[in-house]
Amino acid sequence: MTHAEGRARAGVLSTPHGDVETPAFMPVGTQGAVKGITHRDLESAGADILLSNTYHLYLRPGDDLIARRGGLHRFIGWTKPILTDSGGYQVFSLAGRRKIAEEGARFQSHLDGSDHLLTPEKAADIQAQLGSDISMVFDECLALPADTSAVRTSMERTVRWACRAREHFLAIRAGRVPGVVVTNPGQAQFGIVQGGTYLDLREESAKRTVEIGFEAYAIGGLSVGEPPETMYDIVEHTTPFLPADRPRYLMGVGTPEDIVQAVARGVDMFDCVLPTRNARNGQLFTRVGRINIKNAQYAEDDGPVDPDCGCYTCRTFSRAYLRHLYAVNEINAATLNTLHNLHFYLDTLRGIRESLKFGRFETFRDEFLQH
Amino acid sequence: MTHAEGRARAGVLSTPHGDVETPAFMPVGTQGAVKGITHRDLESAGADILLSNTYHLYLRPGDDLIARRGGLHRFIGWTKPILTDSGGYQVFSLAGRRKIAEEGARFQSHLDGSDHLLTPEKAADIQAQLGSDISMVFDECLALPADTSAVRTSMERTVRWACRAREHFLAIRAGRVPGVVVTNPGQAQFGIVQGGTYLDLREESAKRTVEIGFEAYAIGGLSVGEPPETMYDIVEHTTPFLPADRPRYLMGVGTPEDIVQAVARGVDMFDCVLPTRNARNGQLFTRVGRINIKNAQYAEDDGPVDPDCGCYTCRTFSRAYLRHLYAVNEINAATLNTLHNLHFYLDTLRGIRESLKFGRFETFRDEFLQH
Repeated sequence: MTHAEGRARAGVLSTPHGDVETPAFMPVGTQGAVKGITHRDLESAGADILLSNTYHLYLRPGDDLIARRGGLHRFIGWTKPILTDSGGYQVFSLAGRRKIAEEGARFQSHLDGSDHLLTPEKAADIQAQLGSDISMVFDECLALPADTSAVRTSMERTVRWACRAREHFLAIRAGRVPGVVVTNPGQAQFGIVQGGTYLDLREESAKRTVEIGFEAYAIGGLSVGEPPETMYDIVEHTTPFLPADRPRYLMGVGTPEDIVQAVARGVDMFDCVLPTRNARNGQLFTRVGRINIKNAQYAEDDGPVDPDCGCYTCRTFSRAYLRHLYAVNEINAATLNTLHNLHFYLDTLRGIRESLKFGRFETFRDEFLQH
Repeated sequence: MTHAEGRARAGVLSTPHGDVETPAFMPVGTQGAVKGITHRDLESAGADILLSNTYHLYLRPGDDLIARRGGLHRFIGWTKPILTDSGGYQVFSLAGRRKIAEEGARFQSHLDGSDHLLTPEKAADIQAQLGSDISMVFDECLALPADTSAVRTSMERTVRWACRAREHFLAIRAGRVPGVVVTNPGQAQFGIVQGGTYLDLREESAKRTVEIGFEAYAIGGLSVGEPPETMYDIVEHTTPFLPADRPRYLMGVGTPEDIVQAVARGVDMFDCVLPTRNARNGQLFTRVGRINIKNAQYAEDDGPVDPDCGCYTCRTFSRAYLRHLYAVNEINAATLNTLHNLHFYLDTLRGIRESLKFGRFETFRDEFLQH
């Protein structure tokens, strides 16, 4: 941590593949690529760390193949840090028939229906083979709404799984797990706080997860349909239980507003498909709100998407052209829109970090949320 | 023309949007974008001139809209030269029910079935509104094989259409066609030689088209299924009838080998969808032949697509990664493959021009065709 203002913090996350200034946004490269944008353009937009999905890479091309290639960095040609999720979220949201037991989650691949078992140990093995810089523990992602007893049961299972995941991670690190090819010996492991929308369960989950002891901690199970204010509340009441000297990662969040609000409550890392997925659907972020480029009103609009944006798309192309590309279903619509949206996100994070360095975060936040 | 060797020539084509060194390859930006690659990457791969399709742009977003935007260059944000085809080829290959008469071609849009009439005059109007640097005359594209009398009839109609197209083009240039917004006053118009596979008809078409008088001339109706040797023959027997001091454009051609062979026979300009379309289908050009990246044999191949290629794709990514991207249907597969294939084409043209400057084209050609 290098600067703080209120509960917001600026800092540096060190990894085997370099440092990441926080607060940081991680673009989502589900299958080892951020859809529609090259690594080169990603880097020049300011991406310092990428998130990739264990579930997808495990199914295709497989973590064994990636390990034989020397790990995920080498395989995908990305030289900066990578965080991998545990696959838990996809098992619960994407996979076919699934059965959760104490051992782990049995599920069918959404691709070919084949049977798989993902356990806390297996998720750690896969991520060790992928060699990401940060690996996440395997957690249960409960469908909300759920009553307090269901959430408690699930949270407690997640804690037990976190225990097993940590133990196994340390065994891998110590070279005591034969058959697992460790492609990044400096990998860190983050624990995940669950507990739904119940503040007492969140507090208990945080305390018990911290007790297990991870390099850092994430807040999971949010941005799943609850109102933003509820999410802000939970974040606000959870971060105090997470060590101040470790980065805090709010998983799967969110809108630019969500990010600014979460930073104000002490969060340092974010990932979300919103900028990339929305780009492919024609929804573009601007400093004065979102616009839908497919709307007829942009057909003859010669202005840039966002006059205050310095990205390649905004410097070069008009709304009229981007609407045309979208309307005629050109691949380039996805590329140019993605470039802009990611630039917008990464620029917002840059603005947050700058404001923290100069003690102006409150001003930044007020101005940002005004629009 | 700056250098010659045998019948091969190096030269410079001057346009209102800058010079183009020839022999030149024009990537195809059908709808105002080259599928899968940004203008920025196109330019850095060495593209000096773009081809765009009148038929497609006329249907969507419409030449009126583009004229109101200030022309195609401004609309699509491409500052270098653009050549537009006349729409003829698409009418004959893509449109629904069509009826050819002396007046022109009536056809139904392949998009919504709406009725349209494209005439030599209308094709010139549309291209004047698009404001390309080079506009092409509207020609009849006969389905092959066809007997000599059918080809003669079609060739003669194309000559009559060329007469009308030129007259109308000059009227537009003189400001005598109300309602047409001329967005590029320096636009040139190229005539097109037809005549199928009959050398005598090709000769007659060339002579009569040159007699009409255009800024330069193209050879059309080739690369439509005839054997390469037939095409080389026709090119060889047609170029002598085209003025030596004007660029010669072989439309829709072809493979890298075709291009080298046609340059040897006096051709200066080319366009083809092969590098871009094949890229999207996973077929990649290399100095030792084409490879199909989807093949299982590349699943664990850590080498670049082409070890002799300096493009971003080859410098950064392995065949294994590109195969993975293709297999999981990532947009980035199209982007990275297109980048490579276009780089390969533009590099080949660069090699041709260099060799001509140093009087080594024959050597270059022999070596190139050896593989």
